[in-house]
Amino acid sequence: MEKVEHIGIAVKDLARANELYAQLLNTQPYKTEEVPSEKVITSFFKTGETKIELLAATDETSVIAKFLQKKGEGLHHIAFAVDDIQSEMQRLKQAGFTLLNETPKEGADNKLICFVHPKETNGVLIELCQERT
Amino acid sequence: MEKVEHIGIAVKDLARANELYAQLLNTQPYKTEEVPSEKVITSFFKTGETKIELLAATDETSVIAKFLQKKGEGLHHIAFAVDDIQSEMQRLKQAGFTLLNETPKEGADNKLICFVHPKETNGVLIELCQERT
Repeated sequence: MEKVEHIGIAVKDLARANELYAQLLNTQPYKTEEVPSEKVITSFFKTGETKIELLAATDETSVIAKFLQKKGEGLHHIAFAVDDIQSEMQRLKQAGFTLLNETPKEGADNKLICFVHPKETNGVLIELCQERT
Repeated sequence: MEKVEHIGIAVKDLARANELYAQLLNTQPYKTEEVPSEKVITSFFKTGETKIELLAATDETSVIAKFLQKKGEGLHHIAFAVDDIQSEMQRLKQAGFTLLNETPKEGADNKLICFVHPKETNGVLIELCQERT
C-alpha cells in the first residue's frame, strides 16, 4: 500500500456537502464525476497527497443509498493506492482477507479498484486502487 | 488543512487489530501509546504521509468505549494537520462549525488537537492537529 489515495464519505445532498467541505478544507472541489456502474455521483477535494471523495447516490439501489439508510451520513471507506492491484489482491486473499470483487473493476477518477470486506478489517471498508494507464 | 495526518479506527481488541492491519498494510505498527486523558490505547501504522491510528478503550467511560457500544468497530475520525491550530479553530468557528473543545488539548503522538462536531460535517468527526514544538 503506497499511500491513502482517498477517503470516501457518504452524503445525502452533494451540493450542500460540497459547500460544507469547501469551508472546512478551505479549498474548492476540483472535480465532480458520475460513476453509472456504482450509481453514485462523487466530488473530490485535495488535501496533501490524499483526496476527500464525497459520494451521493443517484439511485435508491446504489450501495451508497443502502449505506445511508442503514448508517446515515459519514465515513464510508478508505482507499489505498497500490502499484499492482492484481498482486495486492492475490497477497490479501492469501492472507485470509475477503475480496468483494474477484477481478479489478472500474472506479471513479480513472482507477482500477477492488474492495476488501470489512469483516476482517475491524468494520472498515477498504478499497485498493491503481491508476489506469 | 495541510494533509490527512491520520485516520482513526475504533477497535475492540488492539492486539488482534494490530495483526490484521499489519497484514493488510504489509507493515508493522511503529508505535503504541496510551493516552490516559482520553482513556485510550493507540497504535500507529505509516502509509505515505498519513498514519492509520487504531484506538481501543482502556476504560468503559472512554469515548471509544461509547462509540463501540453505539456503532461497533470501524472508522472513527479523520485528522487534518494544521500549521496553526488556534487560527484554524477561529476560522472554522467563524464559518459556523461547532468545536468540541474551545482550547487545544493534548492528543497522542505529541500533538495539540481540537475536534469538530460531526453535525456540520455530514456525520464525520474531524480532528485538527498541530505538531507540538
